Amino acid sequence: MRTQVAIIGAGPAGLLLSRLLTLQGIDSVVLENRSREYVEARIRAGILEQHTVDTLIEAGVGDRLRREGLEHRGIYLQYPGTRHKLDFPELCGRTVWVYGQTEVTKDLIKAQLDGGPPLIFDVSGVVLKDVATHHPRVHFTDAEGTPQVLECDVIAGTDGFHGVSRPVVQHGTNGRVWERTYPYAWLGILADAAPATDELIYAWHPEGFALYSMRSPTVSRLYLQVDPTEKIENWSDDRIWDNLATRFALEGWELSTGTITEKSVLPMRSFVSAPMRHGRLFLAGDAAHIVPPTGAKGLNLAVADVTILASALVRLLQENKTDLVDSYSDRALARVWRCTHFSWFMTSMLHRSGDDFDAELQLSQLRRIAASEPAARELAENYTGLPLDL
Amino acid sequence: MRTQVAIIGAGPAGLLLSRLLTLQGIDSVVLENRSREYVEARIRAGILEQHTVDTLIEAGVGDRLRREGLEHRGIYLQYPGTRHKLDFPELCGRTVWVYGQTEVTKDLIKAQLDGGPPLIFDVSGVVLKDVATHHPRVHFTDAEGTPQVLECDVIAGTDGFHGVSRPVVQHGTNGRVWERTYPYAWLGILADAAPATDELIYAWHPEGFALYSMRSPTVSRLYLQVDPTEKIENWSDDRIWDNLATRFALEGWELSTGTITEKSVLPMRSFVSAPMRHGRLFLAGDAAHIVPPTGAKGLNLAVADVTILASALVRLLQENKTDLVDSYSDRALARVWRCTHFSWFMTSMLHRSGDDFDAELQLSQLRRIAASEPAARELAENYTGLPLDL
Repeated sequence: MRTQVAIIGAGPAGLLLSRLLTLQGIDSVVLENRSREYVEARIRAGILEQHTVDTLIEAGVGDRLRREGLEHRGIYLQYPGTRHKLDFPELCGRTVWVYGQTEVTKDLIKAQLDGGPPLIFDVSGVVLKDVATHHPRVHFTDAEGTPQVLECDVIAGTDGFHGVSRPVVQHGTNGRVWERTYPYAWLGILADAAPATDELIYAWHPEGFALYSMRSPTVSRLYLQVDPTEKIENWSDDRIWDNLATRFALEGWELSTGTITEKSVLPMRSFVSAPMRHGRLFLAGDAAHIVPPTGAKGLNLAVADVTILASALVRLLQENKTDLVDSYSDRALARVWRCTHFSWFMTSMLHRSGDDFDAELQLSQLRRIAASEPAARELAENYTGLPLDL
Repeated sequence: MRTQVAIIGAGPAGLLLSRLLTLQGIDSVVLENRSREYVEARIRAGILEQHTVDTLIEAGVGDRLRREGLEHRGIYLQYPGTRHKLDFPELCGRTVWVYGQTEVTKDLIKAQLDGGPPLIFDVSGVVLKDVATHHPRVHFTDAEGTPQVLECDVIAGTDGFHGVSRPVVQHGTNGRVWERTYPYAWLGILADAAPATDELIYAWHPEGFALYSMRSPTVSRLYLQVDPTEKIENWSDDRIWDNLATRFALEGWELSTGTITEKSVLPMRSFVSAPMRHGRLFLAGDAAHIVPPTGAKGLNLAVADVTILASALVRLLQENKTDLVDSYSDRALARVWRCTHFSWFMTSMLHRSGDDFDAELQLSQLRRIAASEPAARELAENYTGLPLDL
């Protein structure tokens, strides 16, 4: 087998990259070690920046997003006694969209299988070879157990945090990683309950952070800050609803409950790997960086990576110019660190941790954002997404 | 002896309060357990917010400040390779003034001794009595060793962090304190060297924070982040200048050196005590709160406290209305927490501490402030001083 760009991993980063390259006339093959069913069932983030929406629409996979996506014009910041709305259009002229990453993935897979370049599920034993040369290869075993070799000009490592690509880059470049494990986790639920709020609610509470989000007019997605060692079996549905009611409590407002269809405990971690390139192997998305979900940046960062990478690869493969691939890692990492900082800022402002002095600092910061136009604008600009190049 | 307001402590807070009350026709007596020479020699902060300058001028002690104070229209934020100017008038329409707290104190003492209300130095054994009644008293021993009793309507506790007033409020109200000791200190020097910069330089450096400030056109005040256990005798003048040269290094710029006339290690601490009132005893300034010096807020916060307190006492003693004294603690504390948060923000952004991930977060934040108008404005508004009531 031969292609121009071998893409490792069929998450939104890999699938979108394949799509963007196709539109520019560049061949690719996407390899995924999970099944289609598994990939389409993974529940992930749900907030898309305008830039992400624009990119998906330009890539021709925005029809359902336009129909079913919910435009959100702000968020609420809540602390005891106050639920303050940040009005994004007023603060920075932009909005965000609620549309699950799962749905983005489904749309991208559908487009790929509907006449797009090869998308091969259930592969195993993926090994990247000769990535420092102009003729890299991917060895793998297909679903039938047959060993295969994919020859290519470039490999894109979009295989996530646990993928095979990052170690190859790290080893080949003598690279660096930065990591932070936060001392708390999120207990997340999906519930068949109409959202009792028009916008997401980010709630600071003495007992811990809570986030009210939604996936559709009938499905709510809610989170509770819990200890990272917390066992999900200790959280009955009643206990979850009781805790949510306490943390979102506000006079004159009521939580709407419903059947919980999914619940799990999610760790909170920051991770950055640099550089994002070794020779002809380029990392994008979770393969290179993880952010805690509080800033809603993970998926958007992956889309920004592949947007930058796609134009760099077009330049390399069609014009034989290396300037954009040479600057890719630095350009992507500037944005990665901005989003890593913003995600840290949102996370550390909203989660209870540390002592009472920390709690007062958090409340002081929240009150300032509620009172100050520049403080609110700084949050809104970062939340709704900064320009591609910082 | 009898007066309307007994003021404990002749720092800028107590002296300015006495002055503001005098201008409103209210009697006071200021008691100070140190000598005039000691008080006038204490070296402290040197950045005055516009509000502080306005208050001192209105209080009739602004003549020398107007002549000798240096208006500063911004600060530099430095990190390796970059020295970025924040232009305060452009960002928020305000400026700050460089004029040492020592000079403010001298001007206030001079005015007080020049026909102002009694200012009694070298007292000892100060005890506050019956503060929960309408007839509080201050027992003390004067410089001649004679026991005295000062009867009054109100006591103002402006006697600093180590004073006798705060424990009385804490005990009487079953109050609370919040405290944070930062894991670093400042080594500060005064040098006979013309400042090599037009504005203060706040420098992030891998080896630690450094601050370039000045007291006059011929005197520089410089600081180095050091370990809090650092002994001043281990820091020769040469070692200090070498470290300053390294941390402020920038192509095309040179540090100017000179004779070091003072050097000391200053701890970095945050402290807040609440409430700021018990009965007829009111705390103001360092007696109620300490901020680390990075945000230049300590003196300005004290001036804000006494400005609020003076009008509250006028209302109480001349109109017999308690509304403003009743709201004093909450009004003052709102501002205290805002400044405590800002001081923490500046301190934790600029000092090396923690791991490499923290360092990248700091650099990301600094780059954002250099690139973003709302982020820069948020810093400028806080630095130059927010309105009296938040």
